Amino acid sequence: MEVTLKPIGIIHTPFDRKKTCPIQSVFSKDAQGTIEVFIEHAPGLKDIDGFSHIYLLYYFDRAGEIKYVRSTFLDDEPHGIYASRHPCRPNGIGLSIVKLIKKRKNELEVAGIDVLNGTPLLDIKPYIPRYDVFETATEGWLADKEFGLKPAGRE
Amino acid sequence: MEVTLKPIGIIHTPFDRKKTCPIQSVFSKDAQGTIEVFIEHAPGLKDIDGFSHIYLLYYFDRAGEIKYVRSTFLDDEPHGIYASRHPCRPNGIGLSIVKLIKKRKNELEVAGIDVLNGTPLLDIKPYIPRYDVFETATEGWLADKEFGLKPAGRE
Repeated sequence: MEVTLKPIGIIHTPFDRKKTCPIQSVFSKDAQGTIEVFIEHAPGLKDIDGFSHIYLLYYFDRAGEIKYVRSTFLDDEPHGIYASRHPCRPNGIGLSIVKLIKKRKNELEVAGIDVLNGTPLLDIKPYIPRYDVFETATEGWLADKEFGLKPAGRE
Repeated sequence: MEVTLKPIGIIHTPFDRKKTCPIQSVFSKDAQGTIEVFIEHAPGLKDIDGFSHIYLLYYFDRAGEIKYVRSTFLDDEPHGIYASRHPCRPNGIGLSIVKLIKKRKNELEVAGIDVLNGTPLLDIKPYIPRYDVFETATEGWLADKEFGLKPAGRE
């Protein structure tokens, strides 16, 4: 079985190179980007402006070799790819939660963006705290990693 | 541009029919399921057992007609598909957060499952509160919907 997807838009960000791209949205809360949704998909954005945060699902189009076990940005120890958010993964789907600032026809202005400029967009879903907040979830191998300082002013 | 994906496993749940399938994990916290990861992907599960919650990305293989604007399970008012989690959507990718109970070789026992039995699995990612919790996010058209009573004992 195979699943064939077609991008529904393009993510425009200030990050043209992997080196300067933040690794998660929470570390890039000031980084703004524009989600361009292809015009035929624009009707699907109705009422999205009521949500302050949205999920972006996108395709890691510049990812390198897939390894099932590898070290990550945060840790030299190797971890399973499914225990990590690393871009070089089977099926190459990326997931980010960003803050929705403004909707303009077929464009969404967002903040806290952490993806490369030009990344193909696959889906947008509303972030819904009553579904999606699990405050006490445990963080596995990330638990003692120093990335955990909540960036000041995170909303 | 097209993106071709291959399932990495199969989601086994008690829900064989759309009618009896819960619409979100938080309403099915007792519903258990088994994530079967195809054996060649099993090495990618290393260290996943440190996480109490995981994202499942999967393919809505039994979804019906795609409409950009439609009423939803929770509301007769029509909303844009990207302002909803409805399964009948372009690219048909589903997203659920489930509780990880146990890992067994290439299988994960999970709770709070809300997908149809036999659904093709596309990816697993760790849920990381420091990345993923936005307590104060607003809920748009869902804000006054009664689904919002937190199920007792939700973890």
